[in-house]
Amino acid sequence: MAKVGILMGSDSDLAIMSKAAEMLEKFGIEYEMTVISAHRMPDIFVDYATKAEERGIEVIIAGAGGAAHLPGMCAALYKLPVIGVPIHTKSLGGTDSLYSIVQMPSGIPVATVAINGAANAGILAAQMLSIGDKDLRAKVKNYCAELKDAVVKKADKLETIGYEEYLKQM
Amino acid sequence: MAKVGILMGSDSDLAIMSKAAEMLEKFGIEYEMTVISAHRMPDIFVDYATKAEERGIEVIIAGAGGAAHLPGMCAALYKLPVIGVPIHTKSLGGTDSLYSIVQMPSGIPVATVAINGAANAGILAAQMLSIGDKDLRAKVKNYCAELKDAVVKKADKLETIGYEEYLKQM
Amino acid sequence: MAKVGILMGSDSDLAIMSKAAEMLEKFGIEYEMTVISAHRMPDIFVDYATKAEERGIEVIIAGAGGAAHLPGMCAALYKLPVIGVPIHTKSLGGTDSLYSIVQMPSGIPVATVAINGAANAGILAAQMLSIGDKDLRAKVKNYCAELKDAVVKKADKLETIGYEEYLKQM
Amino acid sequence: MAKVGILMGSDSDLAIMSKAAEMLEKFGIEYEMTVISAHRMPDIFVDYATKAEERGIEVIIAGAGGAAHLPGMCAALYKLPVIGVPIHTKSLGGTDSLYSIVQMPSGIPVATVAINGAANAGILAAQMLSIGDKDLRAKVKNYCAELKDAVVKKADKLETIGYEEYLKQM
Amino acid sequence: MAKVGILMGSDSDLAIMSKAAEMLEKFGIEYEMTVISAHRMPDIFVDYATKAEERGIEVIIAGAGGAAHLPGMCAALYKLPVIGVPIHTKSLGGTDSLYSIVQMPSGIPVATVAINGAANAGILAAQMLSIGDKDLRAKVKNYCAELKDAVVKKADKLETIGYEEYLKQM
Amino acid sequence: MAKVGILMGSDSDLAIMSKAAEMLEKFGIEYEMTVISAHRMPDIFVDYATKAEERGIEVIIAGAGGAAHLPGMCAALYKLPVIGVPIHTKSLGGTDSLYSIVQMPSGIPVATVAINGAANAGILAAQMLSIGDKDLRAKVKNYCAELKDAVVKKADKLETIGYEEYLKQM
Amino acid sequence: MAKVGILMGSDSDLAIMSKAAEMLEKFGIEYEMTVISAHRMPDIFVDYATKAEERGIEVIIAGAGGAAHLPGMCAALYKLPVIGVPIHTKSLGGTDSLYSIVQMPSGIPVATVAINGAANAGILAAQMLSIGDKDLRAKVKNYCAELKDAVVKKADKLETIGYEEYLKQM
Amino acid sequence: MAKVGILMGSDSDLAIMSKAAEMLEKFGIEYEMTVISAHRMPDIFVDYATKAEERGIEVIIAGAGGAAHLPGMCAALYKLPVIGVPIHTKSLGGTDSLYSIVQMPSGIPVATVAINGAANAGILAAQMLSIGDKDLRAKVKNYCAELKDAVVKKADKLETIGYEEYLKQM
Repeated sequence: MAKVGILMGSDSDLAIMSKAAEMLEKFGIEYEMTVISAHRMPDIFVDYATKAEERGIEVIIAGAGGAAHLPGMCAALYKLPVIGVPIHTKSLGGTDSLYSIVQMPSGIPVATVAINGAANAGILAAQMLSIGDKDLRAKVKNYCAELKDAVVKKADKLETIGYEEYLKQM
Repeated sequence: MAKVGILMGSDSDLAIMSKAAEMLEKFGIEYEMTVISAHRMPDIFVDYATKAEERGIEVIIAGAGGAAHLPGMCAALYKLPVIGVPIHTKSLGGTDSLYSIVQMPSGIPVATVAINGAANAGILAAQMLSIGDKDLRAKVKNYCAELKDAVVKKADKLETIGYEEYLKQM
Repeated sequence: MAKVGILMGSDSDLAIMSKAAEMLEKFGIEYEMTVISAHRMPDIFVDYATKAEERGIEVIIAGAGGAAHLPGMCAALYKLPVIGVPIHTKSLGGTDSLYSIVQMPSGIPVATVAINGAANAGILAAQMLSIGDKDLRAKVKNYCAELKDAVVKKADKLETIGYEEYLKQM
Repeated sequence: MAKVGILMGSDSDLAIMSKAAEMLEKFGIEYEMTVISAHRMPDIFVDYATKAEERGIEVIIAGAGGAAHLPGMCAALYKLPVIGVPIHTKSLGGTDSLYSIVQMPSGIPVATVAINGAANAGILAAQMLSIGDKDLRAKVKNYCAELKDAVVKKADKLETIGYEEYLKQM
Repeated sequence: MAKVGILMGSDSDLAIMSKAAEMLEKFGIEYEMTVISAHRMPDIFVDYATKAEERGIEVIIAGAGGAAHLPGMCAALYKLPVIGVPIHTKSLGGTDSLYSIVQMPSGIPVATVAINGAANAGILAAQMLSIGDKDLRAKVKNYCAELKDAVVKKADKLETIGYEEYLKQM
Repeated sequence: MAKVGILMGSDSDLAIMSKAAEMLEKFGIEYEMTVISAHRMPDIFVDYATKAEERGIEVIIAGAGGAAHLPGMCAALYKLPVIGVPIHTKSLGGTDSLYSIVQMPSGIPVATVAINGAANAGILAAQMLSIGDKDLRAKVKNYCAELKDAVVKKADKLETIGYEEYLKQM
Repeated sequence: MAKVGILMGSDSDLAIMSKAAEMLEKFGIEYEMTVISAHRMPDIFVDYATKAEERGIEVIIAGAGGAAHLPGMCAALYKLPVIGVPIHTKSLGGTDSLYSIVQMPSGIPVATVAINGAANAGILAAQMLSIGDKDLRAKVKNYCAELKDAVVKKADKLETIGYEEYLKQM
Repeated sequence: MAKVGILMGSDSDLAIMSKAAEMLEKFGIEYEMTVISAHRMPDIFVDYATKAEERGIEVIIAGAGGAAHLPGMCAALYKLPVIGVPIHTKSLGGTDSLYSIVQMPSGIPVATVAINGAANAGILAAQMLSIGDKDLRAKVKNYCAELKDAVVKKADKLETIGYEEYLKQM
């Protein structure tokens, strides 16, 4: 049974939002992912958000761009944590998405991550679920250790071959 | 029967949004005004927006600040024109409100006016209604003539008394 | 007889502004479209804006970029609704266009849509005209239903084939 | 035993950050609150963040302004959820705080709320903890119902006394 | 006969725009100053701008705030230099005014000065007129020498009394 | 003898700044153009700016990007009009150049044009020189008439062939 | 003999810039402080910047607001480190000052600190001088230890008296 | 023994940060360069920053993008000068990096250079080291003379061949 719902307002956001899915797969967390628009199909959206908790969804990750209402409207209807992913936009660089998601009024928080930060949304969902799941805590820490090792390897490589050679290999 | 619905997400926006009401009164257009939050009372909000057309509302004016979802969510549910009024905010000056309202995705427009531009929202509603109402067109033009006269009087006064005296009287 | 006038300050805006025309065609609304510059041909512009109402134009859609004065100057001369489309700009991303169009002074509103949001300008014009035209209201609602169906199909496809396959097909 | 740690980089942030504490008190969640600076006392900070999990802290709420490194550095050292509160700043309105907190690199998320949004940080922490605590879920929902009632009362009052009287009473 | 026309869209800009008048008085340049709105009285505005040259006006200084079209519309109709003064605005700090004035399309320049920089607009007008007037060049240089002397005196005072005493006297 | 000096801080700005030269050639105004850096060769720069007036230069056009000090430092040393051209920058889009040029302190104006607006700088220089030169006034007006004709032709073409065909031909 | 020169373009910056002086006094570093304007007195400015090194000045701290050229022009003429302090401005919050100071072209760096960050400019100057002065290193570290102690005391106080009492005492 | 440490949070910054290394090589200053992440490997980072001074590092240059904490956290732990290089970012153009680096709180300065300004970071490090090293001062001045010569050559070339030919050769 899916514990995390990944939502996006348009399939043009799928390349970004799939990074959240990949991260959840890495941690072995079941999820569902769908395209759902608070603007174009408000009835379906309201139905989804209203019933998500009773269906067992424990965290919602919602990505949207421009006047990005999807995360905030999820947070209005669903009372477990909602993570918002502001999607980069051509004209305003994603400041429109970011402001529309993060500047929520008192009472209805959205846990906002970086512009296009869907991978971090997946990790944050895992961290939330790991509050009550020690195995998951270990997985998150292992992942962080992997990240550290990757940087250490790069540092070693840079020291060994020098920056000119390193840049040629990039 | 009210033709225009004036909505705001919080009564802290009332001082601004009442300018829209004053303008509609000036044009003799019936309106209703209420505080309604898409975030804090989504069920009441959905009910309002869904039934507004059958209740005879022909234009909705919605003001909101910050992650300002009220106008856009109205536009998702109500298919006559929605006018959005971005409310000034302390930290971002209302750019958050403006972007959240104006940057709507294709298919769901919100007719956005200036930050705190509620008076213009009232005039714009009147202009929309005046498409099918010649008397109302005349009233809008009369109002514009009044605006012009007011500036002409100021120009005359400035010419007569000079800027130093004019500034003293301000 | 044309009911909607679509104006743009430069033919470099035509690729964007033609989306408004396409939308009006979809709704069966007659329109005229021209290139007209408030800056480069102010006499022709003033003549157009002053006579538009008596020629039967009920809504003007005006697109402009940079110091975008065309929509606001239309609104100074033409007293039915004016819809402004801010055009994306290279250096400021269209914030210059947006601020020049939306921040109109009290008394002269411009109904502003998103940066490059010409399709929404067409829909908004249709909504305004539909206040007095029940057939047009139905057409707008049908269009919204089509938008919804398109998203539902994408959601079904995503559920069926998974995100990896979906991304490959994009 | 405290489940939530509320941190701030300077006591000048206390008036804002105490809203998080008030919210946790409302939900009956034990917390600890301290002033701790990643910049001015990095050793104490590292010690705090490294040992927080073993001391039973399940969520950290960190507020900071300007080059706001506190939340992100918590997230580097502590692997349960970190909520960041960007504090308003005089010159940049808090965009500096917001960008410094939300734009975290892949691998180290910070759940960012609105500028000065400490109350929402408290609610978000409660939502995270409520994943494994049905009683807490009920408390969060009760709180949301209270918020709704408050708006409904305001709407009733506005309908009853009209906007002019309402404004006088504000 | 006035050589410089100082225009402003609203008498709320008079306190700022009068600085341009003061500067012209200092240089002994005749000017006229009026309140004229391209938006609220387009006919009077067009008449003014079209006839200004034949009336002997050699430079126009135009100040405006928000969607500040006055300077640019002057430049569309009047072919001698137009100096634009962006007026500070509450919500956007005058970036709206600045972008609306400076970002003019190719063919119709506006010589833009700083936000609220009306004194500099007066000096710039004097510099333009001084191209063909050696006496005026001398006056501009004298004024710059006065500015220099004023700073030199402040520097001397700071050296003499020290910063603590200097700050007390401010 | 050159009447206008066109300066740029780096030859990377030449493609833009040459538009000013082209415009001056169009009006038959003699000019000189050079690369001069207030930062990299301050002595040569000071020498140039100090002697420009006595060499007969009546207007300086200076283009610069980033921390764009060239126009403002010209204005500190040269007391006839200085026109500043902010050059587009990759990271800040030219807002850095614009603010560095336009926000000059009281006493030292720079006549600022649009980002990359070198053609308008050339026209503005011509307008300044035309205050004392009726032939040049006529040339500027002729140029504006050409601009108008070009738009009229585009409008005719659009009316004749329709937008679909027009877009194909672009 | 002064080792650090503190410059400001206007005595209106003295309240801010005196914080740099206070910091240098704390570290026992001799300094001189003056008002000097690259715009209003370019000859005096060039003389100062050219001779500063031979007079024994080892670091220049320059504060300026708006089109803030003072630090960058110092760096063009003086080849030891220049520290720039962007001063807060009313309309643009100091982004104009910041961009004008930090965005220097390749070859002429300015070490930029925070908006109004004059105290940090003093500390940075001390750090630069401490490269060759072990006693000064110790003083800088002592100062940092004091900063740490101050925060520790605040943390203790908060723990002891609670946030409600703490806020009352502020 | 290395006197300058060049740090970057990710090897994606290497192409930019290597410009600092090239500049130090030009001046004959020994340096070390490594990839080190305050977020992904906080223990290694703390160890590096804490021991850098005793290992003889006299200046640290740190580049980072987005929520760029590396320079500021260096400055918290290392008490000789830290130079910060904000790296350009796709969505916010590097304003996120710039604000995260430059807006440091009182007590912990970071000497910030332009977005992507790594070459200037190298020069600034050389300037700092040259306070106590007259030979290095001479090298910095020689480099500045080379920069000047390069511009002079370009100016000569432009004068000789004209802008049209110059542009063709670019």
